Amino acid sequence: MAHAPLYSKVPTLADELDIVIPTIRNLDFLEQWRPFFEKYHLIVVQDGDHTRKVGVPEGFDYELYNRKDIERILGDKAWCISFKDSACRCFGYAISKKKYIFTIDDDCFVAKNPSGEDIDALEQHIKNLLTPSTPHFFNTLYDPYTEGADFVRGYPFSLREGAPTAISHGLWLNIPDYDAPTQMVKPRERNVRYVNAVLTIPKGTLFPMCGMNLGFNRDLIGPAMYFGLMGDGQPIGRYDDMWAGWCAKVICDHLGLGVKTGLPYIWHSKASNPFVNLKKEYKGIFWQEDIIPFFQSVKLSKESKTVQECYLELADQVRSGLGKIDPYFDKLANGMQDWIACWDMLNPPAGSSKADKPLPNGTA
Amino acid sequence: MAHAPLYSKVPTLADELDIVIPTIRNLDFLEQWRPFFEKYHLIVVQDGDHTRKVGVPEGFDYELYNRKDIERILGDKAWCISFKDSACRCFGYAISKKKYIFTIDDDCFVAKNPSGEDIDALEQHIKNLLTPSTPHFFNTLYDPYTEGADFVRGYPFSLREGAPTAISHGLWLNIPDYDAPTQMVKPRERNVRYVNAVLTIPKGTLFPMCGMNLGFNRDLIGPAMYFGLMGDGQPIGRYDDMWAGWCAKVICDHLGLGVKTGLPYIWHSKASNPFVNLKKEYKGIFWQEDIIPFFQSVKLSKESKTVQECYLELADQVRSGLGKIDPYFDKLANGMQDWIACWDMLNPPAGSSKADKPLPNGTA
Repeated sequence: MAHAPLYSKVPTLADELDIVIPTIRNLDFLEQWRPFFEKYHLIVVQDGDHTRKVGVPEGFDYELYNRKDIERILGDKAWCISFKDSACRCFGYAISKKKYIFTIDDDCFVAKNPSGEDIDALEQHIKNLLTPSTPHFFNTLYDPYTEGADFVRGYPFSLREGAPTAISHGLWLNIPDYDAPTQMVKPRERNVRYVNAVLTIPKGTLFPMCGMNLGFNRDLIGPAMYFGLMGDGQPIGRYDDMWAGWCAKVICDHLGLGVKTGLPYIWHSKASNPFVNLKKEYKGIFWQEDIIPFFQSVKLSKESKTVQECYLELADQVRSGLGKIDPYFDKLANGMQDWIACWDMLNPPAGSSKADKPLPNGTA
Repeated sequence: MAHAPLYSKVPTLADELDIVIPTIRNLDFLEQWRPFFEKYHLIVVQDGDHTRKVGVPEGFDYELYNRKDIERILGDKAWCISFKDSACRCFGYAISKKKYIFTIDDDCFVAKNPSGEDIDALEQHIKNLLTPSTPHFFNTLYDPYTEGADFVRGYPFSLREGAPTAISHGLWLNIPDYDAPTQMVKPRERNVRYVNAVLTIPKGTLFPMCGMNLGFNRDLIGPAMYFGLMGDGQPIGRYDDMWAGWCAKVICDHLGLGVKTGLPYIWHSKASNPFVNLKKEYKGIFWQEDIIPFFQSVKLSKESKTVQECYLELADQVRSGLGKIDPYFDKLANGMQDWIACWDMLNPPAGSSKADKPLPNGTA
């Protein structure tokens, strides 16, 4: 059977992938990642006080943007990039010139597989992104493109080519990604279960996308990876990645793209403060009860054929469908529109007069 | 948070569960299952030559039905139970008086978990069936009702009660459940990957349901577990469980019931002959290209509130939607109707004048 290549030797994509890291700290966590990350270019998005110097371990190739850089580059549209919230990371997605993005939080470390070996998270994300997804029918042996697996009896042959993979969502050992109420109820729960599987989230199904350990194909889905308006001056936090996940999933479904979840694991070292989290989350906890049905019923028109077109249509629907919940969603719809304007400014279509991207002076 | 009970001590349900085994052999495989199965009642459905004596190891409590028994009990409706095909097992589902069914093939043995311990497959199925499913939103840490797991951040709280679980689909180590073409291309492929997860197949997503290692709640979904017309006199085989899976899944989706897949594993000892399989399957391989889109677009009416009502409505849709592929589907629609008649005869509604079920004289 003609199969997509099984990457037993996975390409590094060193020239095609940027690692985006939002931070308010020093990036000492990179020391542990050195063997896996040092061949890649890093885009560091410094949150909070721009005068603070972010320490980056020696030998890493990086560019760094603080709030002043973002304001200089985006001008009056800089407001759409969140401040004092890790949602600011999406600036890094827009400024990148690469095909693939891997983003990771600075409290995430190298996890070990059950044999005790260090997990090269990035290699697994690359494997996930370079092999197809199966959004149209569930394969009970999980990812059929993994070595030693295939499509099971009863899987339609016409669907075995799969769909291009846009997103690879990785998981976390140790501290699970719980909301504040669950953190409070289960303060000692740790994720110790290593599930050796990658699977496609089926078409039509939403999932909670976490930004801690996330890879995606920028060419396929980049403009949908806006992390919304969170943090300073906003009524909500900790829903940045969720927002991006809901938007990106409905657009992937519309465009016939796949979203995978499962491997790789990273080691999530410290739980954020549940009391602070509750304050950030509580409106989201209410709002998501309306937001989820909204996204479950979103229909994009056939005319929307690019991610940008889909995203702008979605912004209109957010305004009309969610604006009644709270004026915040009007502002968010504006943010979504300005985000696309920023994206297009930083990523002019090939052949346009701005085909050479502006080279914003990063402070690196 | 109010959670469904976590069954760290799983009830055995010895008086509420029947094990259904279709066979043309002796049931020597039960020896290995003795510690796990001997407290349960077995329903053996003998396929093929009814004069052959099926050997059942000492000490098991069982009833056995051969073709003559089925014909005596179902009369002129016996034709809807397949002959010379393991699809005959569904007779056992109808004749059972218990709430739960576990069905297993006689070439399936006890598998070992990664720690080398024997897996009590039935215990895991019971755990799956007694805890809710999550068909409306994907939980990235898989089954949230497992010990050590929960719903992740961003999972709507209103959906955390889950849905009643109707089906528990278990997997297979060693010989994977491949179709004939895949068997031919990969004759040496073995499934050696133990994936430590149970997950819900999302609403709206079809899956290939395998009958080798399968548990279900008869009260919730029993009448939809018809294994179709296969084998002797039929143009198709090896699609019995697939047919039941497609029908049961759309009915579960319509009725708000859940379907889980993943753990437990059994050890599947021998691959069936791929040449024989190809002969049985090849029409199915073509037909499923139309059958899958059909099931993906099936809509059941609000008036269909019981499994029987749903199933009869589905039979009508099969006739009108698939009858044009081949006259076989007309016959299958008739079979579906007669199956429901058999089910209702053997399982008269409580309070009806036939509330005492007929006691068919099994040959046990």
